[in-house]
Amino acid sequence: MHSELIDTLIVKNQSKIIFLIMDGLGGLPVPGRDETELEAAHTPNLDALARKSVCGLLDPVGYGITPGSGPAHFALFGYDPVKNSIGRGMLEGAGIDFPMTAKDLLVRINFATVDQQGRVLDRRAGRIDDETNRRICRKLQEQVRLDERVEVIFKSVREHRALLVLRGEGLREEIAETDPQQTGVLPVAPRALVAEAGPTAALFSELIRKAGEVLADEAKANMILLRGYACYRRYPSLAERFGLNALAIAGYPMYRGIARLLGMDVAPQTDSIGAEIEALRQNYAKYDFFFIHVKPTDSRGEDGNFEAKVKVIEEVDTLVPQIINLHPDVLVVTADHSTPAILAAHSWHPVPVLLAAKTCRPDRVERFGERACIQGGLGRMPMMYLMGQALAHAMRLEKFGA
Amino acid sequence: MHSELIDTLIVKNQSKIIFLIMDGLGGLPVPGRDETELEAAHTPNLDALARKSVCGLLDPVGYGITPGSGPAHFALFGYDPVKNSIGRGMLEGAGIDFPMTAKDLLVRINFATVDQQGRVLDRRAGRIDDETNRRICRKLQEQVRLDERVEVIFKSVREHRALLVLRGEGLREEIAETDPQQTGVLPVAPRALVAEAGPTAALFSELIRKAGEVLADEAKANMILLRGYACYRRYPSLAERFGLNALAIAGYPMYRGIARLLGMDVAPQTDSIGAEIEALRQNYAKYDFFFIHVKPTDSRGEDGNFEAKVKVIEEVDTLVPQIINLHPDVLVVTADHSTPAILAAHSWHPVPVLLAAKTCRPDRVERFGERACIQGGLGRMPMMYLMGQALAHAMRLEKFGA
Repeated sequence: MHSELIDTLIVKNQSKIIFLIMDGLGGLPVPGRDETELEAAHTPNLDALARKSVCGLLDPVGYGITPGSGPAHFALFGYDPVKNSIGRGMLEGAGIDFPMTAKDLLVRINFATVDQQGRVLDRRAGRIDDETNRRICRKLQEQVRLDERVEVIFKSVREHRALLVLRGEGLREEIAETDPQQTGVLPVAPRALVAEAGPTAALFSELIRKAGEVLADEAKANMILLRGYACYRRYPSLAERFGLNALAIAGYPMYRGIARLLGMDVAPQTDSIGAEIEALRQNYAKYDFFFIHVKPTDSRGEDGNFEAKVKVIEEVDTLVPQIINLHPDVLVVTADHSTPAILAAHSWHPVPVLLAAKTCRPDRVERFGERACIQGGLGRMPMMYLMGQALAHAMRLEKFGA
Repeated sequence: MHSELIDTLIVKNQSKIIFLIMDGLGGLPVPGRDETELEAAHTPNLDALARKSVCGLLDPVGYGITPGSGPAHFALFGYDPVKNSIGRGMLEGAGIDFPMTAKDLLVRINFATVDQQGRVLDRRAGRIDDETNRRICRKLQEQVRLDERVEVIFKSVREHRALLVLRGEGLREEIAETDPQQTGVLPVAPRALVAEAGPTAALFSELIRKAGEVLADEAKANMILLRGYACYRRYPSLAERFGLNALAIAGYPMYRGIARLLGMDVAPQTDSIGAEIEALRQNYAKYDFFFIHVKPTDSRGEDGNFEAKVKVIEEVDTLVPQIINLHPDVLVVTADHSTPAILAAHSWHPVPVLLAAKTCRPDRVERFGERACIQGGLGRMPMMYLMGQALAHAMRLEKFGA
């Protein structure tokens, strides 16, 4: 089945769909325990919801594939995460919520340390601090100029990472990455990988030379390495594909950026899960699709802190009744991917999902947890089909064929 | 996995396969109940069969997709329902079991009411009765003539609907539909959508003008609107693909027509489920694949009558021993799609399936019902792979690779 079949069946109505995404929710037991973070958490509200829902397990990208945040969120919103693979530079731009235009070529910068012969000594410039990063980016922005028809933008990200944007006509992304992937050698030249990229490659050669001059007096970050060249690519929006007027409620830049790429409005930044629910309530009348992103589940998983991740899940559980009280037609609770504390990283394990709607067929799931969801009526499903399920239960898909 | 891989592995033997299809069997609970129609029904015979079968849930077309009868039956018989998407006009022809030929261009007619300026007042001509429909189709058949190289056939369907067939050489289907989809405006001209369709478009213009003249004295149905132009498309038969000598036992024209499109023989029409089982017994020696279609499960679902649908299921259950007594090598009991009484319409919910054969690996399903089937050994499976399962258990597929 193609993930785009649903696009041909869309009908509009007044229904409301809420996706509550607990980033990195899926977990694993730690030694001495038998339960995952979600199973260990006291979640009476989610459990009650699971009993009235259809549950299952979602594979974000595919069996055994550990997804980054980009592909995982594309899948959540019904976009094939492999076909819509997003270039690293563009994801870097989305990650700092950079306002991209159709003329942009986006590139990731790694600041590096080179010796007097230009050989790379440290590919991450000793992981300079964010403050230094910002200062260096300001310096580059002020002093590096190219051909007047091409605007150059430097944006600080963090540590040794920054975003470079060339804005102009006819720029090409088929350029060799300059990071040599080892130390003691010169950076790779940014040569054109196809003939048509020649003029763009020349711009990058000039830019690297000028950046080296500007950074010559820096102790650590005295060179830039370029990777992940990506011309801006426009994705069809949720409005275009599904007729959904969508609002993203997310505190972290990456998720706000991805939501914007898919044409969602983005609510003002908030600093707590409670504030996110309040933003949902305030905007409930104005939209028909809501993406609520909860970051700390993932952060505590990345920290390797099982107990802290459990606590975040329990906090979310206490807020669930406020969402239910809005009486959405479809409420989905799931994750973009697993981040088991024991791995302190994203993983390939499928994520638990519950979908609550009046049209749910009963299954035998009695609580919201990974192993309970194995028995759920959704079965084990590629994540990119979740949106179709949600639209169906919202009565927003018409019949296929007669 | 491609649905056509099995075609390359076919071996023939003397085995018998029976598909007992309860149309629209899948259901949902109604308020105040926890059980679906199938779960609520007393089905001792199907339950006993389920215990000896491998069970599961089938998605007719895809997650969240509500299928029409055409795609759903294509999937049942092992045909990818999206790739083999059947044109509306051709399905209309199949729906009245019209004997199509390779020279046919099939079109659906909606009779409409237009005012003296030709503007559409009622796109369904007040839903004229079937008697009027037949009279009008006879009148059109007698009086409308085109180019002598093209035969014109009008066939009554029901209410405001009819089938128009142009039979000739070189006809094209890329013609604009003439239904304006709103009232108060003129019908759309049947213009050619590609240059090669010009001559066919001219034929339709002439035909519409002549039909308007013939119908001018009708009170309601004084114009025809055309949609779903479809040139006859030949599908490989079950004999060609799977080496199956197949018999369809179905009372309703639509299912008889689809079976004929796939090269099945079609048993004489019968008027009860019992008579269908009798037809199975009488023809059992002559065929090796049997498609038995039970319509009332769907009809009572479409009526929104939960209890009546339960009763149909219970009636079928009483007849199941007669099928089992024939000792088929493979007996499949399932549906083409769900028709929950509470929705009074087809739905996207997966359908329960049981497959009984000597080679079934035991699972833990103790009765035939939707939530029991979640735990079944087939898992949740795209419907188009069911035929491969049946052929395998009938020992009709050889090993793939060495």
